[in-house]
Amino acid sequence: MIVALAGGVGGARLAVGLAAVLPPGALTIVVNTGDDFEHMGFTICPDLDTVMYTLAGVNHPQTGWGRAGETWNFMNEIRRLGGADWFQLGDRDLAVHVLRREALHRGLPLSTVTLDLADRFGIRHTILPMSDTPVRTRVKTMVGGNKGELAFQDYFVRLRCRPRVTGFRFAGARSARVPAALARIMRGCVDAVVICPSNPFVSVAPIFAVPAIRTWLKARTFPVLAVSPIVGGVAVKGPAAKMMRELGLKPSTLEVARHYGKRVDAWVIDQRDAHLRERIAHLDKPVLVADTLMTNATKSAGLAQRVLGFAQQLKNVK
Amino acid sequence: MIVALAGGVGGARLAVGLAAVLPPGALTIVVNTGDDFEHMGFTICPDLDTVMYTLAGVNHPQTGWGRAGETWNFMNEIRRLGGADWFQLGDRDLAVHVLRREALHRGLPLSTVTLDLADRFGIRHTILPMSDTPVRTRVKTMVGGNKGELAFQDYFVRLRCRPRVTGFRFAGARSARVPAALARIMRGCVDAVVICPSNPFVSVAPIFAVPAIRTWLKARTFPVLAVSPIVGGVAVKGPAAKMMRELGLKPSTLEVARHYGKRVDAWVIDQRDAHLRERIAHLDKPVLVADTLMTNATKSAGLAQRVLGFAQQLKNVK
Repeated sequence: MIVALAGGVGGARLAVGLAAVLPPGALTIVVNTGDDFEHMGFTICPDLDTVMYTLAGVNHPQTGWGRAGETWNFMNEIRRLGGADWFQLGDRDLAVHVLRREALHRGLPLSTVTLDLADRFGIRHTILPMSDTPVRTRVKTMVGGNKGELAFQDYFVRLRCRPRVTGFRFAGARSARVPAALARIMRGCVDAVVICPSNPFVSVAPIFAVPAIRTWLKARTFPVLAVSPIVGGVAVKGPAAKMMRELGLKPSTLEVARHYGKRVDAWVIDQRDAHLRERIAHLDKPVLVADTLMTNATKSAGLAQRVLGFAQQLKNVK
Repeated sequence: MIVALAGGVGGARLAVGLAAVLPPGALTIVVNTGDDFEHMGFTICPDLDTVMYTLAGVNHPQTGWGRAGETWNFMNEIRRLGGADWFQLGDRDLAVHVLRREALHRGLPLSTVTLDLADRFGIRHTILPMSDTPVRTRVKTMVGGNKGELAFQDYFVRLRCRPRVTGFRFAGARSARVPAALARIMRGCVDAVVICPSNPFVSVAPIFAVPAIRTWLKARTFPVLAVSPIVGGVAVKGPAAKMMRELGLKPSTLEVARHYGKRVDAWVIDQRDAHLRERIAHLDKPVLVADTLMTNATKSAGLAQRVLGFAQQLKNVK
């Protein structure tokens, strides 16, 4: 059993690769829900949907969110009627949100709803939210000398990541309830945990912030491998590099490795960062250098294969 | 002040005519909410939306429900994902439903939500639901010798009006709360009430079933005029004639006039039913013969003009 920890795009791309090379039943993708929020009466789960749409092959190939071939007649009408139009909900995307709300309203936990939706999309691997109770990422900011705190989507979508970040808070994390299906997996035999190339601060940190997951990882008997989300000093997608700078860290694979510290046992870094191999190895972390830019499904599967081979190697050493 | 009582299409068409010839502030359209139901987490108000869309000029000209130039990408996706697809919600139509649910969820009464939506559509006349609390039409049926009771939309949409009707029940009517804005109008000076050519059993009867409205109409000092929904023995639209037959009534303007009895003071009947003029007049009801088939906005306005002239005449006589 391989457990992948995933945020949005980077997570989804590696998940697609892992799903291509692992049989159903041998892969669980645990997805960040810190970005989730309530909007227009819907529970929006950006990372869960990105992973689900990508695994189903219906994701928009460019944007990193939403559906391919999406239409916007609902949204245009909302705009015409003076409704909130800062967060885009496509006509097809709405179907998932309506079904999700109905099911949550019936009292089903988010994990059950997620498994059901994935099933409707024909996905045979297991996608689970990190928590069945709301965990909400709050972004601490400094704007013009004034401290502030923003809901994640306010920061990410409405303000387009412009405010300077000073830290994060994961509201609800302390009392987060891990899905029963995930608790079962954590009690069972896990071969490796793979941290996908997702934002360390707002995609992976919220997962670590869930007490049951943190405790489980601390007491691990399996290796934790991480694929660096920083390649050549820049984030492949999203604000990770900008956040690192604002937090006083140099955006680099090395700095990300230092940031994760003991939480990661081995690193997969991009070939463009091969020169950092020795310095990361000095942190006592085995390093695999690979082509980590998953620009298509074949490259995703290729990287997944190498990551899994590396995990096998580490296990044999242990 | 003219108060129109309206159901769906017939109500909407006369309302458009009345709106064309009356200044805003001189027309209130009270709409049946007995057809309303909860579906996919939305409060669906078929008659309110038909009236609103028609007054806004965005209604579908053929179907009698929904929007012109509607698209179905949401619905097709719901179907693909195995969701409930028996009730059609178009992509543009969804905008109204999402905004309505949000507002109702904030605790606003349906009347406030309706006035706000109408405002967003640029409608300058007053559209009000007959009740701010749920009234739900239940259709009593006889199928294969078995008595049954159906929710209105189950009867109307899912079963396409096939079951034989034996009666109706308006659940919630007894405790229905008339909107504050309507209560104000009822306390004020009303020149006439116009019953639009809507289904007597499932569009107008639910409005009569609201105690405050019934009491107000009983104690009236203004004339109540009705435009017959039956023309030449058939319903212009919908199951009114079928229902009359099943209830043991001959589908005719005369029978409708008998059915309404004292609740109506004067009748507007179609020129195709001119031969019934005398027999209706024998019920002690003044009759106006007119072209009541409102196949376009000009004809709607023409009929409205004649109805209002007739009301003026009746008032002068009184």
